[in-house]
Amino acid sequence: QNEERLKALEAEMANTQAELAALKGERNDLAAVTQEESKLRFGGYGEIHANWVEGGNDLLDIHRLVMYMGLDFNDWIKLSSEIELEHASTDEEYLLIEQLYVDFLFADSVNIRAGRVLAPLGIVNQNHEPTLFNGVERPNVEKYIIPSTWMLDGVGLFGSPLSWLNYEIYATAGLNESGFNGKEGVRGGRMKGRPGLNEGALSGRIDVFPLMSESQDLRLGFSGYYGGTDNKNKGGSNSNTNNVSTDNTFTMVSADFEYNLSRVHLRGVVALGENSDSSNLNAAYEPTDGAIGEQIFGWYLEAGADVLPAAWKTGKLKDSSLIPFVRYEEYDTQHSMADGDAADAKYDRSEITLGASWLLTRNLVLKGDVQFCDTAASGSTTKYNLGMGWVIN
Amino acid sequence: QNEERLKALEAEMANTQAELAALKGERNDLAAVTQEESKLRFGGYGEIHANWVEGGNDLLDIHRLVMYMGLDFNDWIKLSSEIELEHASTDEEYLLIEQLYVDFLFADSVNIRAGRVLAPLGIVNQNHEPTLFNGVERPNVEKYIIPSTWMLDGVGLFGSPLSWLNYEIYATAGLNESGFNGKEGVRGGRMKGRPGLNEGALSGRIDVFPLMSESQDLRLGFSGYYGGTDNKNKGGSNSNTNNVSTDNTFTMVSADFEYNLSRVHLRGVVALGENSDSSNLNAAYEPTDGAIGEQIFGWYLEAGADVLPAAWKTGKLKDSSLIPFVRYEEYDTQHSMADGDAADAKYDRSEITLGASWLLTRNLVLKGDVQFCDTAASGSTTKYNLGMGWVIN
Amino acid sequence: QNEERLKALEAEMANTQAELAALKGERNDLAAVTQEESKLRFGGYGEIHANWVEGGNDLLDIHRLVMYMGLDFNDWIKLSSEIELEHASTDEEYLLIEQLYVDFLFADSVNIRAGRVLAPLGIVNQNHEPTLFNGVERPNVEKYIIPSTWMLDGVGLFGSPLSWLNYEIYATAGLNESGFNGKEGVRGGRMKGRPGLNEGALSGRIDVFPLMSESQDLRLGFSGYYGGTDNKNKGGSNSNTNNVSTDNTFTMVSADFEYNLSRVHLRGVVALGENSDSSNLNAAYEPTDGAIGEQIFGWYLEAGADVLPAAWKTGKLKDSSLIPFVRYEEYDTQHSMADGDAADAKYDRSEITLGASWLLTRNLVLKGDVQFCDTAASGSTTKYNLGMGWVIN
Repeated sequence: QNEERLKALEAEMANTQAELAALKGERNDLAAVTQEESKLRFGGYGEIHANWVEGGNDLLDIHRLVMYMGLDFNDWIKLSSEIELEHASTDEEYLLIEQLYVDFLFADSVNIRAGRVLAPLGIVNQNHEPTLFNGVERPNVEKYIIPSTWMLDGVGLFGSPLSWLNYEIYATAGLNESGFNGKEGVRGGRMKGRPGLNEGALSGRIDVFPLMSESQDLRLGFSGYYGGTDNKNKGGSNSNTNNVSTDNTFTMVSADFEYNLSRVHLRGVVALGENSDSSNLNAAYEPTDGAIGEQIFGWYLEAGADVLPAAWKTGKLKDSSLIPFVRYEEYDTQHSMADGDAADAKYDRSEITLGASWLLTRNLVLKGDVQFCDTAASGSTTKYNLGMGWVIN
Repeated sequence: QNEERLKALEAEMANTQAELAALKGERNDLAAVTQEESKLRFGGYGEIHANWVEGGNDLLDIHRLVMYMGLDFNDWIKLSSEIELEHASTDEEYLLIEQLYVDFLFADSVNIRAGRVLAPLGIVNQNHEPTLFNGVERPNVEKYIIPSTWMLDGVGLFGSPLSWLNYEIYATAGLNESGFNGKEGVRGGRMKGRPGLNEGALSGRIDVFPLMSESQDLRLGFSGYYGGTDNKNKGGSNSNTNNVSTDNTFTMVSADFEYNLSRVHLRGVVALGENSDSSNLNAAYEPTDGAIGEQIFGWYLEAGADVLPAAWKTGKLKDSSLIPFVRYEEYDTQHSMADGDAADAKYDRSEITLGASWLLTRNLVLKGDVQFCDTAASGSTTKYNLGMGWVIN
Repeated sequence: QNEERLKALEAEMANTQAELAALKGERNDLAAVTQEESKLRFGGYGEIHANWVEGGNDLLDIHRLVMYMGLDFNDWIKLSSEIELEHASTDEEYLLIEQLYVDFLFADSVNIRAGRVLAPLGIVNQNHEPTLFNGVERPNVEKYIIPSTWMLDGVGLFGSPLSWLNYEIYATAGLNESGFNGKEGVRGGRMKGRPGLNEGALSGRIDVFPLMSESQDLRLGFSGYYGGTDNKNKGGSNSNTNNVSTDNTFTMVSADFEYNLSRVHLRGVVALGENSDSSNLNAAYEPTDGAIGEQIFGWYLEAGADVLPAAWKTGKLKDSSLIPFVRYEEYDTQHSMADGDAADAKYDRSEITLGASWLLTRNLVLKGDVQFCDTAASGSTTKYNLGMGWVIN
């Protein structure tokens, strides 16, 4: 009898092991398929806004819809990309490659990046997903002083040589001075298509993390940009066609910080830009929207706190945060003028933004705010904004 | 001897169970990866057409290529989108966001939708995939009377409070009257970019399903739209710039049905639109393509049947259907005119379409038809169309 | 005691088999999900270039970013597509559907393809991924003589009736003669939007593989094109609008080969195109960039070899190749002229390209080359090019 039970057990064991082996084989095929697929990564973000300007235009706006696509060619070569459609239609605005670069990973401390990257200045230019900043619209200091989204084409190095230190540095094509003006600073000089390589630029940033604990964390960032500005889209120099010759260079230095203490979030940016030869730029290009400033300058401070009681973070709201915030900004695209160039007081601006960000999940946010916008010239304007934004990652 | 066999079995058992445990662990990782990926959904549809117009132009046309992208942020917040490239190139036509909304699911009976949605009128505007309608081109009643693809930006409610009842209702931006004309009704007034919010609109539909059995099903739909028309793209009112002031509102009511009895399919749409102040619109905008009608009106009826013998539905044709159909349409974008505005008989149109849809699979269709197009003004035009369409879902 | 051990084993065995059964069930679910997802295929390629032209413009250029999307509707109907964004922005260039076709697979020897396909001439037009050719820029013979990327809209047959023989043949829309000129041949006559069907075209190619062994393989290709040229974008004939009438047809014959012997790669293309009525074309359209040639003609030969020592193909370089190459090209878009039409010697061009392709992996390549460009008219121009390219497949 024992003999029979032993025989039966031995047969079952052989059978079980065969089934197990088959299953493991299929598992490997499946893992290969899944792994293969997971190499190509998709993501993105989107922002839908409603804007009301006191006494002026009001509108609905699918402001940005963005797709990320990434791929690991192998364990040390990785592709990243970001493609953006603004304002819902190519009839309204462009479809644009905002990032497209390949990382060659050598060590934690030194790696190479080549392609189109985001200029490493300020906070929002590199971290512009709607869940990562308060306010429906991005801070104007990071639009008119640091001209977000500011893209650079070239190569660079990046790394984290110490646990509390990150750096990145790039050699890229420079700006196109023919697009500068008094109203928007160097914003019109960004090169979105085929940037000329007549005059290059260097840029970089360092981030240090002096405090990193359970209860609080602090990041301090220092960044800069220096480069020539005589470049034309589709190549070459403005002097070829416009018959002007300037020796202008544009320099920017900026600092920024983010500090989180439990539910409280503080952040701020300060940035100063300087044209070395704004006088000749104005003579050469005669910009219609105000004379180009010798210096452009701006800063902002923002404070917010998650006020959603922990007891409410359950059920549908289990991943939710509700963050009222206030932000104060000052920015002047004609902070100082070259001799003979007149400043227009309306370009010396300040703004208070009061609002709240309601993160329904980590990746979807509803926003509302009111903005009191002042200039040194005249009365103030009030803007009301509602927004919905999301991130796919 | 039994002792040895027992020991061997016990060792093998321990071994097998360890392998099983390892396999289960890996299985969980694999399931996590697969589940993660399946959250981001891709789909779309496409249509390639060949059109011959009697005595006129003939062409090949990649009419539409569309991508869907969807995401479940969690179990109650879901993103849907539809992005369309028309006529193969942004040099020919736009790349356009046709749908982009977030659903907040609360209950079967009440849910919130926010973003850009398809106007809930007629059949084809919301169900425009090429496998879902007969004929190479969409019915003209749903182009010139209901201006498909008609997009609305705003917020709404939708639900299915009873098993035989669905509803949806939206508060959105209105139309732009400066694009209306006699030839295409309100079609030119759709807002594709950044719609102004000067005058809003309400729209909605109800679907009832009085018959739902194995052998037959019937859907009846009732829909409507009411809203102001003084809105401009990029915000605000036309009166700001054009210095005109009208009090026009546009109202539309529509009904539609679909009835399937075994292999027979019937459907139809009727729609009536009315401008409250077409007289002033014509005075203010002086449209070049005919005076704007006070009323626009159209209807169509279509009958088709799958004639592919069941015996043939095998092998390569196992998921195939062959559906000859006939459709009769009438539509008049100057159905009634305000005093003093003249109607042009050529905008009072009727069409007979005879053709067939050959679904090779559920998701790929070959189509062919001939269209006899008449107007109240003059002789008829004959059009021949071939098409291939597909859906990815 | 044995009794207890037997009982324990029997219990464990039952338990193990239950776990195994559960795991197999879950495995099937997982496989279903994975299989479902793998039906929709994504891929693409990209090229980032830096170009320096002696004494002229230099620039950085995200030349091409391309997405593929494919789907198997079932085991015999398959969709393929290729969508391209050139020069980083729709403000610079178009977003364009370069391929979009459905294959109906019947047998190895005969299958149907319908939609937009790549013209089957030369090497690069159908195989244009940056890892598949040497040189930062594509060979100019395959730009100015064979106008890559040359797309055709229509239907065709393809197959591999013998193991050493492939063929494809298409009936498509023809060219648009109004875009022809002396500088770029028929390049401006490609139809990217909605090609008119006034005059069609036939094209085809045959590839034979006389040598296929471990040590060497040879491919010989023969291709041709014949078609009318009186077609307009958006349909119809040029004679409708321009009031010109020509009877021109364009004929092209081409041959190409690729030969690989161990680490050595040789390839070449020769192509001759002829307009039957270039004299009337020039009279009718008076092209500004030189008179249209009666014949256009070009050829190139290229040799390269992977020189990376086998011993170095380890670690980070395990999938690497380093291929120095040289290419000689001659092309003349005014190879022969009709009586009364004058040739311009500057369109009789030759080029030597010296460079290297460094494949870091099978799918990512770094390229560098120098090009010595001559014309029969005047002095030479030197160009320096750097490039990074990748394929996702």
